[in-house]
Amino acid sequence: MIPQGFSFAGVRCGLKNKRNDVGLIVSDRPARAAGVFTTNSVRASSVDFSRAVVEKGELRAVVVNSGNANCCTGRQGERDTRRMAELAAEKLALGVDEIAGASTGVIGQLLDMAKVERGVSEAATVLGQDPVPFMDAVLTTDLVEKWAWSDGSESLERSTAPPAFRNTNGKPCIYGVAKGSGMIAPNMATMLGFLVSDWDVSHIDLQACLQRVADKSFNCMTVDGDTSTNDMLLLMANGASGIKPTLETFEAALLDVCTSLAKQVARDGEGATKLVEVRVTGTNDPKKIARTIADTPLVKTAMFGCDPNWGRILMAAGRAGVPFSTDDVTLKLLAGEEEFTLFDNGGPAAFDPKRVSTALKSDTVVIDLHIGEGEQATIYTCDFGYGYVRINAEYHT
Amino acid sequence: MIPQGFSFAGVRCGLKNKRNDVGLIVSDRPARAAGVFTTNSVRASSVDFSRAVVEKGELRAVVVNSGNANCCTGRQGERDTRRMAELAAEKLALGVDEIAGASTGVIGQLLDMAKVERGVSEAATVLGQDPVPFMDAVLTTDLVEKWAWSDGSESLERSTAPPAFRNTNGKPCIYGVAKGSGMIAPNMATMLGFLVSDWDVSHIDLQACLQRVADKSFNCMTVDGDTSTNDMLLLMANGASGIKPTLETFEAALLDVCTSLAKQVARDGEGATKLVEVRVTGTNDPKKIARTIADTPLVKTAMFGCDPNWGRILMAAGRAGVPFSTDDVTLKLLAGEEEFTLFDNGGPAAFDPKRVSTALKSDTVVIDLHIGEGEQATIYTCDFGYGYVRINAEYHT
Repeated sequence: MIPQGFSFAGVRCGLKNKRNDVGLIVSDRPARAAGVFTTNSVRASSVDFSRAVVEKGELRAVVVNSGNANCCTGRQGERDTRRMAELAAEKLALGVDEIAGASTGVIGQLLDMAKVERGVSEAATVLGQDPVPFMDAVLTTDLVEKWAWSDGSESLERSTAPPAFRNTNGKPCIYGVAKGSGMIAPNMATMLGFLVSDWDVSHIDLQACLQRVADKSFNCMTVDGDTSTNDMLLLMANGASGIKPTLETFEAALLDVCTSLAKQVARDGEGATKLVEVRVTGTNDPKKIARTIADTPLVKTAMFGCDPNWGRILMAAGRAGVPFSTDDVTLKLLAGEEEFTLFDNGGPAAFDPKRVSTALKSDTVVIDLHIGEGEQATIYTCDFGYGYVRINAEYHT
Repeated sequence: MIPQGFSFAGVRCGLKNKRNDVGLIVSDRPARAAGVFTTNSVRASSVDFSRAVVEKGELRAVVVNSGNANCCTGRQGERDTRRMAELAAEKLALGVDEIAGASTGVIGQLLDMAKVERGVSEAATVLGQDPVPFMDAVLTTDLVEKWAWSDGSESLERSTAPPAFRNTNGKPCIYGVAKGSGMIAPNMATMLGFLVSDWDVSHIDLQACLQRVADKSFNCMTVDGDTSTNDMLLLMANGASGIKPTLETFEAALLDVCTSLAKQVARDGEGATKLVEVRVTGTNDPKKIARTIADTPLVKTAMFGCDPNWGRILMAAGRAGVPFSTDDVTLKLLAGEEEFTLFDNGGPAAFDPKRVSTALKSDTVVIDLHIGEGEQATIYTCDFGYGYVRINAEYHT
């Protein structure tokens, strides 16, 4: 299911213990490119470097390291980011302006460039069609790798298929890989996403398309409300299939892949035991209400505790700064195969707390808040338990 | 140190286990009144009721219950709020429009009015000058009572003096009591504050004065970023001393009392082990940056773990939506008697992590972020550890 014309590599050069830490994705021909980058004022040099490369519209390769975010490292850090791309360019016989770079890991330490050089050299010699070594090379505190695939009619992801390579028989598709566990993990950073496609999208405004899809997928996902210093989502479409999709087909496939990846990242949030989908319908800004609920520690700890505490959900909705009346509110929880109404017509509904609590042990819970007719917004998040505190307070001990 | 002309009561009527749950504050003459109320769209009926009473500008008494927030309880809840004030009015021989009401506790359950009636009746018979039974009557998950006093030149608070009554010999002053632990505690709600003064402030726009002070004190405090459904800050000034303060004197004393109370609430945050003051200087919105740092779980867990993780603090500052360059940033931590520079002139500073970590065991830590010349803003918060998760995920087990 890997799109034609792309190869992958992941190797270990010693920036991290025991796991791959340098990765490459290479297209065998110039690929149309688009990117979405962190909005944080404190940014890694890789973000500025890759944005400038992507703005020219084409890419041949992406080089990534984990174990070091190369952020807040001053002018030397900027030189190292450029040098990492130059090393890849030399080994791949490409121009440095055809290569994007990404980093994830510890903030505030200079990259060990001797290790990076060794890693990039080795990666260039082991390029192949198995994406698994690359996936491993971008993980930090992630417990599992995250990938998704769509050809516009069919979709696959980690929970439904093994990640191994399968020939697509020339059928064009989009394949995506992501990492992220906290928006910024223990002393480390970042949500990274890499999307490759062999569709010929020369007629599509790829940047606008990616931005729309990111707004509906990754930008609807929160683990702890943080935007990292290194966040980056890159898309390369090399046209190797020779098939031009309609914008609708391509954007739908891209949304499939990105939504799946966003949910996988939320579900693998630091210390998380479940995926929580917050759906809000009505008001003039349902997304703002959904995001406020999803970022509220009291809601997230209640989900961890399998507690149908509707007071906290209404409190969180009410503090979002979007006016509404509780008279219009219906609140439901969907968990496992069951649906429970907790609040209806301005007052508490009758429900069996023990039965709801048992259902909330499910690994996916939907909080469905209906405030009126109108637009629906969904935010993906996770619960919040001891694991988050342990990972983020005690990782150094 | 209780202002002249005020009396207090706190009794147990059974809304809560083992602690007082109904309280009264009564002025022996009409007092000028002002109030600041929650901005949450989901509001308890006590908030709307008290706002309407306070808007008339005078109060004689406040009646409070804990153990039940009487929120999201529909029309019957509204009638019960009014009935609680009527019961106090009957027992105190006052008009119902001279009495404010406040509630804190579980959301979504009707008040047991038989218990409330018994409580209000008994409270009216035990009014006296010891504020301790009243303080106890407003606590929920708070570990300690919170009070502060100022006469404009001298200040006292819980950590510096016992809470017991002391005669002021007619010197006018402000005395304040607050409760709050989470903005909304386990299945319960609320930050409540009650301020009484015997200064004659007939010439002062009391509401504007209280709003200014609240913006600099309680509104600069966050435990978990939540604004409860029942938050209320009430001020009564009865003029019993016959002394008219200048606006400057009165506002300074009020700010003393409210800042002390806000810090006491932050320090007693659910599961907290320390008070964290976040100071930001420079940019066009230092308060927004300080609030974002104070609300970031990764910063709060680092403070819990005594971890000088400056990367998280800069990351949080950067995502606040206020542009700045890290080239201009200096970040210091003040803990115990020591001061440490972690980041300076756009790059990491040299420091001994073990020594900083030891100092961070202090019960008060200041995060001092200097981004440029200009205004300084301070936000008071606490750290975030296992206790918060335990209190909020497991209270029902």
